[in-house]
Amino acid sequence: MTFDPSISIGVLGGGQLGRMMIQSAMNLNLEVACIDPDPNAPCKNLASHFVNGDITNYDEVLAFGEGCDVITVEIENVNIEALEELERRGKKVFPQPNVLKIIKDKGFQKQFYLDHNIPTSDFVLISKKEELTRHKNLLPAANKLRTDGYDGKGVQIIKTEADLDKGFEAPSLLEKFVDYQKEISVIVARNEKGEMSTFPVVELEYHPEQNLVEFLFSPSEIDLSIRNNARELAKKVISEFDMVGLLAVEMFVTKDGGLMVNECAPRTHNSGHHTIEGNITSQFEQHIRAILNLPLGDTSVKGSAVMINLLGHPNHSGHARYEGLAEAMEITGMHLHLYGKKITKPFRKMGHLTLVGDDLTALKTKARALKESIKIIA
Amino acid sequence: MTFDPSISIGVLGGGQLGRMMIQSAMNLNLEVACIDPDPNAPCKNLASHFVNGDITNYDEVLAFGEGCDVITVEIENVNIEALEELERRGKKVFPQPNVLKIIKDKGFQKQFYLDHNIPTSDFVLISKKEELTRHKNLLPAANKLRTDGYDGKGVQIIKTEADLDKGFEAPSLLEKFVDYQKEISVIVARNEKGEMSTFPVVELEYHPEQNLVEFLFSPSEIDLSIRNNARELAKKVISEFDMVGLLAVEMFVTKDGGLMVNECAPRTHNSGHHTIEGNITSQFEQHIRAILNLPLGDTSVKGSAVMINLLGHPNHSGHARYEGLAEAMEITGMHLHLYGKKITKPFRKMGHLTLVGDDLTALKTKARALKESIKIIA
Repeated sequence: MTFDPSISIGVLGGGQLGRMMIQSAMNLNLEVACIDPDPNAPCKNLASHFVNGDITNYDEVLAFGEGCDVITVEIENVNIEALEELERRGKKVFPQPNVLKIIKDKGFQKQFYLDHNIPTSDFVLISKKEELTRHKNLLPAANKLRTDGYDGKGVQIIKTEADLDKGFEAPSLLEKFVDYQKEISVIVARNEKGEMSTFPVVELEYHPEQNLVEFLFSPSEIDLSIRNNARELAKKVISEFDMVGLLAVEMFVTKDGGLMVNECAPRTHNSGHHTIEGNITSQFEQHIRAILNLPLGDTSVKGSAVMINLLGHPNHSGHARYEGLAEAMEITGMHLHLYGKKITKPFRKMGHLTLVGDDLTALKTKARALKESIKIIA
Repeated sequence: MTFDPSISIGVLGGGQLGRMMIQSAMNLNLEVACIDPDPNAPCKNLASHFVNGDITNYDEVLAFGEGCDVITVEIENVNIEALEELERRGKKVFPQPNVLKIIKDKGFQKQFYLDHNIPTSDFVLISKKEELTRHKNLLPAANKLRTDGYDGKGVQIIKTEADLDKGFEAPSLLEKFVDYQKEISVIVARNEKGEMSTFPVVELEYHPEQNLVEFLFSPSEIDLSIRNNARELAKKVISEFDMVGLLAVEMFVTKDGGLMVNECAPRTHNSGHHTIEGNITSQFEQHIRAILNLPLGDTSVKGSAVMINLLGHPNHSGHARYEGLAEAMEITGMHLHLYGKKITKPFRKMGHLTLVGDDLTALKTKARALKESIKIIA
């Protein structure tokens, strides 16, 4: 097969995921165009073509996609109708618009799991807040907006009846809490030939208040049988969607060792950032391989890894400066990734770092100390 | 120390070395501007600012450098006087212009080794061809242009008296052949604080006709004592230059286990491409660390690595296509780097690939087969 790299990939969204994809796409000479509503988006200067536009607008997405050979996303909240039209016009759109339509609406997503025998927690669809009172049996629960939630936004915890008033007025779902022992994630890739490959399971530790991933540990140390089940489950999910591209499947490991799908994202994902240094093939390269129908790469780990998100300090907004970073650069196996965002805001994802080494326990200790020593201030 | 990434790095040259440096600089939010005479240089779309200009022209280099905080190079053949003026105006210029002045002229470079007790082969400076006949005692030898030679160009082998007529008319040097057992390279970094760090020694195998590196093997398997000597010698060379930045020191290992410096390059280098995947810190990141006076990174190998240059097929010129590449992507641990060059020419450096694994011998076998299977055609 002769590879002609004159392929242009269009990405809806120009944030850090697009940026790290460009870093990888460069290795194949691929041109990556981005469209993003932020004129200073992280991909601004790196995209071969950057459009400052509205990714939820039909005409803008259609016009953008017309100039590309393959269209993909780094966020779910995009104009699906335009993607469907691009697909009709013969463009490759991965993930496919029909998959995006289901996943971007958490109600449809949960219903999809139910319809396809994919284990997930009990839930009900809610159209307005007053309906919540009918479902006290599900408490404690999470009330989640069906659309537009991200990075911990659009989620309200309803522990007891007293919290019911905190629920959303907009269409949402009420999801019964799962009594889990671990939160894990499996990233699975699938190309047009139907070939699939999963990354080894990782464990996620969320910040107790921000509802954002604070630490990621790779590879997971849970029982091998659970890990194998999780990787099979991720393959089942992407197959049921008949999806091409990369799918991050977040799961709960229940106390009895069972698995429940929490939610999934049809794109590169925060739970795969460690793969850049921690695995033979990174999630960004794998995404490119999948959407171009190339052979999928070896996902094996090279060692243990801990990933930390670098978030803006809660009390600072403005031109970002990084305390403790030069010192962190003295640590062997510390790999830094800043996202090109000039302005910091409270809890804004400004970058991440990955610690790679042989001993996961030692890395965890190092990571917790490191996290405290870096501050992103203005 | 608080790190403010609002630093702009200016690179003279916008080829593959600049391109791979940008890939790394992104991780620190650094803005990288490039100036290159080729309007379609590999950095064209990736530099934060790209100037299509003449890097040997005083005014153009001065104007370019004025807009940057730190100026560096990816090629030696640049306007030194402009860099000296930028230095006088308070800009950081690494490598320093006085080092570039010595290294870009192979005559000055050899004389520098002699003056600083750095072992190197016997040589004489030649101003025109007819002088060659006076130095038959040095044959077999290489006649090298003092300036402007690169990638095997500007070198003429003078084996016997019969070849004397092939010598250059321009200022050159005649270098006695060294009866060596291996060609090796050590890349050494040095920051403004004077901290130094060497990468592990690698072995180079040149193509017998093209005089270009065909295979690179990492780490070298020669005796540890020779490797230690080589790393010390590289430190001595960069220290004698009092240079800040990255210096690639190519050496011969003589049959009795001694070392002779062949030549050096004050920048990232083809003999360090394998470090992207093969070592904890890549040469590109190390270069950035050095010129920004950051702590130098750990250079340890992660495993064995073989690097292959991907050159344009001798019989093809035009829009590049890659035969055998998709198949190569099935090989575990094969990491591809294409340089963004749309046009292939005979022996043009179009990219490289690195094979990483545990067993260097197995990797070598794999690499030789792989090299045959990839063809860059038009």
